[in-house]
Amino acid sequence: MIVRNLGPLDVLSPAEINKIHEISLEVLQKEGIKFHHEEACEVFKKNGARVEGKRVYIPPEMIEKELKNAPATFDMHSRNPERQVTVGGKHTVLAPGYGSPFVMDMETGKRRGSNYQDYVDFTKLVGNSANIDVAGGVLVEPDDVPDEIRHAKMIYTGAKYTDKVLMGSAMGSKKAQDSVDMAAILYGGLDYVQNHPVLVSLINTNSPLQFDGRMTDALMVYARYNQPTIVSSLSMTGTTAPFTIAAALVQQNTEIIAGITLAQLVNPGAPVIYGSASSVVDLKTGNLAIGSPETAKMFGGTAQLARFYEIPSRGGGCLTDALIPDAQSGYESMMIFLTGVSSGFNFMLHSAGLLENYMTMCLEKFILDDEICGMAREYCAGIAVDEDYLGLDTILEVGSGGHFLSTDHTYRHMRELRQPHISERERYMSNAPLPDIVGRAREQCKKILEEYEAPELDPGIEKDLLDFMEKME
Amino acid sequence: MIVRNLGPLDVLSPAEINKIHEISLEVLQKEGIKFHHEEACEVFKKNGARVEGKRVYIPPEMIEKELKNAPATFDMHSRNPERQVTVGGKHTVLAPGYGSPFVMDMETGKRRGSNYQDYVDFTKLVGNSANIDVAGGVLVEPDDVPDEIRHAKMIYTGAKYTDKVLMGSAMGSKKAQDSVDMAAILYGGLDYVQNHPVLVSLINTNSPLQFDGRMTDALMVYARYNQPTIVSSLSMTGTTAPFTIAAALVQQNTEIIAGITLAQLVNPGAPVIYGSASSVVDLKTGNLAIGSPETAKMFGGTAQLARFYEIPSRGGGCLTDALIPDAQSGYESMMIFLTGVSSGFNFMLHSAGLLENYMTMCLEKFILDDEICGMAREYCAGIAVDEDYLGLDTILEVGSGGHFLSTDHTYRHMRELRQPHISERERYMSNAPLPDIVGRAREQCKKILEEYEAPELDPGIEKDLLDFMEKME
Repeated sequence: MIVRNLGPLDVLSPAEINKIHEISLEVLQKEGIKFHHEEACEVFKKNGARVEGKRVYIPPEMIEKELKNAPATFDMHSRNPERQVTVGGKHTVLAPGYGSPFVMDMETGKRRGSNYQDYVDFTKLVGNSANIDVAGGVLVEPDDVPDEIRHAKMIYTGAKYTDKVLMGSAMGSKKAQDSVDMAAILYGGLDYVQNHPVLVSLINTNSPLQFDGRMTDALMVYARYNQPTIVSSLSMTGTTAPFTIAAALVQQNTEIIAGITLAQLVNPGAPVIYGSASSVVDLKTGNLAIGSPETAKMFGGTAQLARFYEIPSRGGGCLTDALIPDAQSGYESMMIFLTGVSSGFNFMLHSAGLLENYMTMCLEKFILDDEICGMAREYCAGIAVDEDYLGLDTILEVGSGGHFLSTDHTYRHMRELRQPHISERERYMSNAPLPDIVGRAREQCKKILEEYEAPELDPGIEKDLLDFMEKME
Repeated sequence: MIVRNLGPLDVLSPAEINKIHEISLEVLQKEGIKFHHEEACEVFKKNGARVEGKRVYIPPEMIEKELKNAPATFDMHSRNPERQVTVGGKHTVLAPGYGSPFVMDMETGKRRGSNYQDYVDFTKLVGNSANIDVAGGVLVEPDDVPDEIRHAKMIYTGAKYTDKVLMGSAMGSKKAQDSVDMAAILYGGLDYVQNHPVLVSLINTNSPLQFDGRMTDALMVYARYNQPTIVSSLSMTGTTAPFTIAAALVQQNTEIIAGITLAQLVNPGAPVIYGSASSVVDLKTGNLAIGSPETAKMFGGTAQLARFYEIPSRGGGCLTDALIPDAQSGYESMMIFLTGVSSGFNFMLHSAGLLENYMTMCLEKFILDDEICGMAREYCAGIAVDEDYLGLDTILEVGSGGHFLSTDHTYRHMRELRQPHISERERYMSNAPLPDIVGRAREQCKKILEEYEAPELDPGIEKDLLDFMEKME
């Protein structure tokens, strides 16, 4: 978890934010939004919205009222109280890459389909990381696990190998209910779950201006159980969204506030996160360009809109369009991550591991991104200022032309310097081999995977989780 | 030049900034600061400061009065009016790497001493860049040029191969005067120079709490000619500055405001820039760690202090501790550059080419950094918002479940998308070779150097510059 003692950095004026809000209300009133979900349409209708087929016309008053019900901040719990995180305010909760169908193997230089062993490996890296807070999501698609139990096996794996906050499945009401039931086993009952956010789930809109049945299903299940959902738009400029960033923000906002309104209608006060994975598209190739500055500023607008609604926000991450961990992946990932935290995002999915936009996970990239997360955390911590830190005495003591290597002030404070943020470079020698940062990341990764010790999971609970899964097969 | 339509991002509170200011005044009053320069001491004395030997005790009233004389913003001119830049306000002027004694040759994988041919090559890259504004500085040390004419040859080379703003020599009064005389030849007379900032020069303090004779010399020459100086501290925590960042900021501030006060005493209203190249030190090895988050936040405090004094600021750049252009150099360079512009720096030395903190320049790194500069420029431009950009009509036209590929709105706006910021990655194929971004940068660099056409320089002026240099030999 990053605590931000700086910013936030605004990219839009208050008047511009208000304008985006007003146009969104106009769209929801005039054009409406489609929910491919009968029960959701019923909920809107019952609360006074006009519904025609799957199209819901939401009156501005309903939106404004329901958005106010969403909490500005909430805590998320896990089986280790030390892993508790706060979503909202000055906090940024970090979650790893999510949803990739591929893994990049830098030893062979080949990309391949992902499997359950990859899922376990990435889970161990999450467990080991001092920066990543969340496990159990779709770290990679474990393609060798049958679809019917894949969601359960991911949650089980997150719970077995880590004691961090977990993600739930968004693939329809059955899998959402399974996720909640497993959380109940893990945390000691449905009552506890009902009163403590323990699972966060990613609900994507279906741009433009639609919600599919499966995601809507899951949204409603989680809202009923008081479990947080990230209502998130992946609007792609020029294809599933208008070409201009301002208009893409309008469309994205329209979708998100409609989804959040539904969650609040189902259960007033249900925790939600205002989310975005939106990006510009390179129309020459049709590729997403998620490591671009255009995407960075769109994220800036997203975080600001969420602040306007006083709802926690999600966006950013170590995003890149590069295919391998190289200079491009380094500067793109840092740009999107750093502008994301500076803009004030409260939840960062995709904080470690991704390459090639959202397509590929890579162990070495995870290690390098973890370093970026740590650097951003140190940056956001800000500068400690008190009389001792300001150092008048030591400055007067050393005076002109002296040095501070052996002052008491230096001795007292030098242990605080967090060495991991200092480059580990070797001294340059004319015949030394060139540094190989990817190779070094690989060695580090191997060591972690070999030596990883999972936090103990109560054997009774583990048996209950395994029994629960067995019944599903 | 980057125009910032966002931020700035603050890392300190107004009370903390004020505290740093007050302690700096106390240091200057109690401990004073050494100027190894008789005339400078005389100037302080004449204006009412107590002077003991080389130590000047500056009263708070003098500092506060003189800082108010420094302009908040000024323009810099060159022989092409289109290359004029504004220093201050929402503008960030970009200058390339400065002062490296080494060049990294990525084709051989070896670091070697730099020479005049390197200087010409980097000057051409500066001339070609759409982002870098400043030429003629110490791009690399041309070690094969005799010291007596090196400064003149650098200015001549900048003037011959580019029509951008130039830097002057800070190596004592003779070389500063030579720089001014050459600017007079280039821009049509000393009168013009006296009334137009055309040369910007880097005056470093000698931490802790000293100015050496040579730099003070140059500072005073440039101030008299109304030419901007960057009064800059390179305070290294735990060695030439206190260990804590807050105290290093105090010491740095003390030095900078003393230097700026001298410039204003010499010539009230002389343009100055509040500068820093300060950094934390890894005390395990004694290495600077300029690509660290600690350095990033120290820069943030620096920019904020300059804003407090309403004086343009210098800091940041594409800084890294990495030895080659790799993932580390990518993420460190982006972090320092981006936090620098977000913090509001007005002048960024070291914007392109550096590796291994300030030690090494590299052609491929220059190309990659130029990309970072362009990305930051696009990010800082912010989001265009007007009725058309907000796109209500196109959103209503496409509605739920359609697409924007063929709308008029997309056609009209798609030409605006700046393609360079979109990754040029090839589609992934299972047997394709891995991308080689450094190799691609090398090809790009070779092409630029082969095809570069310098802007025409009036043959009479060129002859006068050459004659001027000949007389020096």
